[in-house]
Amino acid sequence: MEAFSDGVFAVAITLLALNLVVGGPDHGSLFHKLLHQWPVFAAYGVSFFTIGIIWVNHHALFDLMNRVDRPMLYLNLLLLSFVVAIPFATTTLADYLRDSGTSGTTAGVLYAGVMEGMSLSFTLIFVHGLRTDLLIAAPPPEERRAAVLRFGLGSVAYLVVMLLSLVGPVATLVGAGLLAGYYVFQRTPDAPGDVPGI
Amino acid sequence: MEAFSDGVFAVAITLLALNLVVGGPDHGSLFHKLLHQWPVFAAYGVSFFTIGIIWVNHHALFDLMNRVDRPMLYLNLLLLSFVVAIPFATTTLADYLRDSGTSGTTAGVLYAGVMEGMSLSFTLIFVHGLRTDLLIAAPPPEERRAAVLRFGLGSVAYLVVMLLSLVGPVATLVGAGLLAGYYVFQRTPDAPGDVPGI
Amino acid sequence: MEAFSDGVFAVAITLLALNLVVGGPDHGSLFHKLLHQWPVFAAYGVSFFTIGIIWVNHHALFDLMNRVDRPMLYLNLLLLSFVVAIPFATTTLADYLRDSGTSGTTAGVLYAGVMEGMSLSFTLIFVHGLRTDLLIAAPPPEERRAAVLRFGLGSVAYLVVMLLSLVGPVATLVGAGLLAGYYVFQRTPDAPGDVPGI
Amino acid sequence: MEAFSDGVFAVAITLLALNLVVGGPDHGSLFHKLLHQWPVFAAYGVSFFTIGIIWVNHHALFDLMNRVDRPMLYLNLLLLSFVVAIPFATTTLADYLRDSGTSGTTAGVLYAGVMEGMSLSFTLIFVHGLRTDLLIAAPPPEERRAAVLRFGLGSVAYLVVMLLSLVGPVATLVGAGLLAGYYVFQRTPDAPGDVPGI
Repeated sequence: MEAFSDGVFAVAITLLALNLVVGGPDHGSLFHKLLHQWPVFAAYGVSFFTIGIIWVNHHALFDLMNRVDRPMLYLNLLLLSFVVAIPFATTTLADYLRDSGTSGTTAGVLYAGVMEGMSLSFTLIFVHGLRTDLLIAAPPPEERRAAVLRFGLGSVAYLVVMLLSLVGPVATLVGAGLLAGYYVFQRTPDAPGDVPGI
Repeated sequence: MEAFSDGVFAVAITLLALNLVVGGPDHGSLFHKLLHQWPVFAAYGVSFFTIGIIWVNHHALFDLMNRVDRPMLYLNLLLLSFVVAIPFATTTLADYLRDSGTSGTTAGVLYAGVMEGMSLSFTLIFVHGLRTDLLIAAPPPEERRAAVLRFGLGSVAYLVVMLLSLVGPVATLVGAGLLAGYYVFQRTPDAPGDVPGI
Repeated sequence: MEAFSDGVFAVAITLLALNLVVGGPDHGSLFHKLLHQWPVFAAYGVSFFTIGIIWVNHHALFDLMNRVDRPMLYLNLLLLSFVVAIPFATTTLADYLRDSGTSGTTAGVLYAGVMEGMSLSFTLIFVHGLRTDLLIAAPPPEERRAAVLRFGLGSVAYLVVMLLSLVGPVATLVGAGLLAGYYVFQRTPDAPGDVPGI
Repeated sequence: MEAFSDGVFAVAITLLALNLVVGGPDHGSLFHKLLHQWPVFAAYGVSFFTIGIIWVNHHALFDLMNRVDRPMLYLNLLLLSFVVAIPFATTTLADYLRDSGTSGTTAGVLYAGVMEGMSLSFTLIFVHGLRTDLLIAAPPPEERRAAVLRFGLGSVAYLVVMLLSLVGPVATLVGAGLLAGYYVFQRTPDAPGDVPGI
């Protein structure tokens, strides 16, 4: 399952860069065109590292399982269905990043919504791993509720990012970027076998 | 062979999402454009989980083989040639999902036809595995006919889905979606080593 | 190296299907558009199975090596540079398949040329494996010349396919298709460790 | 981690070939169109082998590590974020290769800049491997400074390539091509465990 998931993560993260396009040499200075394209580059950066973080945490979580069952395979597919939608949500957010009206908010909600779906699927995978005997080094029953809450923090955070879309799409992107930065630089496992969600 | 097949499944499932495109910010409200695009999202969802199910069952089947021969490699290529065509069939179905005329039916037949080709190739792989000594835990000879029929149920089901195209492309998509849902939620192996086809 | 090569083969074989596109529902009957697109489907089929065959033979050859050296890695890259160009050559051939003039011939020469480059790189890999101690089960020195000639038959065959381009692009495609069919159905290793080239 | 990185390298190197496009049969002789497209083919060749070299050296470096830590995973993501941007930088350079003005220089700086970012990330990975106990067969402390300098030579070379952009985009491409050629044909490890950077 890891090989397939790795493949999907790798293709999705690389397809992100298909959005990086500037017109041909007919339409003015390349430098200004690149500057004008900053939303595309900013959205690319945030999405690239978000997919990267999920991939890192995905490995950390599945390394704690010796085997998987069929429901786990389908929960993993659910997660991947959101991962695969990230390039689409990213392009749309970049396209509408200068839109201060309703469409800008819609683009932000779409982006944060895909991230939320991904985050919730990942929490479902964790919960299913806890309930069955798939997850080794699982915390004792009395600590599981706390572990799930800690794991599911990302799902709450992306709800906040979704609310930021009311301010505008730039706020959504900054929120998602800060969240990604937090996971890269700050979020450390609290205990052996404690995998950060997202 | 698994790595290559996993790669093809992963790329095909991710390329599906390339169909998810909305126009730039010039052409009206993003919300209405997303609503208007429901055929694309619906077709994406059905095809994503169909490819996912084939991948799950593909692994389950090849895990029952210790080695493969050259004919098996080429039968696997035949299967993958249909998997790789799914994004094309999906876009075409989505493009014509509102077409209640002949072209809508053609799009439905094309979609169900690609699924049928995939399903038949998968059954051929199973039959070849049974006939040679490649498949471990193969049922005894007197039960093989029944096993092939049970495995090949998906091929019959996709013929029914193809007939649904006469009603219209939406019926095709609903049929394929129900079939995928059945395989995710209901279809359980009847015996150890009993792999569901599709 | 296998994982990377498998990935490149998998992506290249799947990108082939990106050429499969029909216009939206505005421009006439889907059935006629699909019929009109036969060059695209024919070229897709031939290229799909050609890449598939190279992949099968690539594995068979590298399974005979316990390790690789740096020149072998770069020879493999040379091979992959042609594999990756196959989707481009395929689209171009399909675009010009109805062109009976010079451009049709050019498209055929381009297609056969990419195949020839691939075939020659593959022969170089075999020769380098023979000359160094990388290839296990290598034939004794006095039989090596014959082994290289037998391995390099595909390079000669693709020269013939290139000459067929003078007749027209359809002749090129038919030639390449027959060659692929020959490798799938007829070409069997003459001896243990005898890998067919292409 | 290798599987994911291999996947990203494989997809990025194959996406390069998506730039290889000639117009349909309506617009003049295919032969002249192919000739006219030489910038695309030249840029494709240089970028293909540059990604190939990084992949070869990436494997050589990570084969010297028994395990990786989280910072290493994120440094690897940083490297991959530049690898994934290479197809974009390549298309842009090809589009502006005939532009002798400011935009041509911008395209050259962009291309060399992406390569520089890749080279610097790769050096950071080497330095992090040296500082922690991740890199086995690491040189003794007094030789590490020299090893880092030797490893980081590519970063200096790409700065020179960036300066060549002042001459024009063709000079950038030729410089990058010569650098790739040097790494393929000349650069040999100075010592066991001495991995060439780029």
